[in-house]
Amino acid sequence: MNQINDKPHPSYGPTNPAPGNQAAGQRQRYGSLIELNLEKEQAYRDLHAAVWPTIVERIKQANIENYSIYVAPIGDRKYLFSYFEYTGSNFAADMASIAEDPETKRWWRETIPCQTPLPNRKPDEWWMDLESVFHLD
Amino acid sequence: MNQINDKPHPSYGPTNPAPGNQAAGQRQRYGSLIELNLEKEQAYRDLHAAVWPTIVERIKQANIENYSIYVAPIGDRKYLFSYFEYTGSNFAADMASIAEDPETKRWWRETIPCQTPLPNRKPDEWWMDLESVFHLD
Repeated sequence: MNQINDKPHPSYGPTNPAPGNQAAGQRQRYGSLIELNLEKEQAYRDLHAAVWPTIVERIKQANIENYSIYVAPIGDRKYLFSYFEYTGSNFAADMASIAEDPETKRWWRETIPCQTPLPNRKPDEWWMDLESVFHLD
Repeated sequence: MNQINDKPHPSYGPTNPAPGNQAAGQRQRYGSLIELNLEKEQAYRDLHAAVWPTIVERIKQANIENYSIYVAPIGDRKYLFSYFEYTGSNFAADMASIAEDPETKRWWRETIPCQTPLPNRKPDEWWMDLESVFHLD
């Protein structure tokens, strides 16, 4: 036995389809994680209870649906766990359309100071994309 | 200013309806959290890629839909985030029906050793129920 063989690896099957095995046109699910800055927690809560209508509209136009965010207290820190579904056909292009939107840039000036991204996220990520290990329709 | 006033509190609005303000019969969304035991990570992944059909059936009978679990690496630990939707009218009764099922008891003998519940969960919880701060249909 060596270190490499002992390392956990993805396991795919009927209740965790491999990314390539998902049916075409099927909605894609995203779980993401970021740290919540405790001194900005109330500001984050207030902003998200009444997200600006322009931002809501922009998210919908980018084919994002069924989008929820939860607060997770772990030890003396808090994290934000988000779940949403993507129904479009070009995720990168739709995300870029959000990032280029002037209203979204204004929104992010409010929300970014509330967050600390995970140090182990991928270089191009703000929220860290999480690996799915189970799904049941 | 005192300590109590400074403590963050829930904020409700159009994009975070208060629990009592949700439309009757509407599906309820649950986000939950538990720690994954690293030495049992592969076993957990393998079990969840091919969840026993009897367990899948029992979950569906309990009015649980659109159920996903993600792995979240935070520092030198890993956590499991789950998201599911409940479409029934008596969550406690449906959860009890799962807990009383002999097949589920057998399943939990496999999965419980893979998990460490959060110390700050409520006394009656295994997975910790997370507070929602945002939702968009």
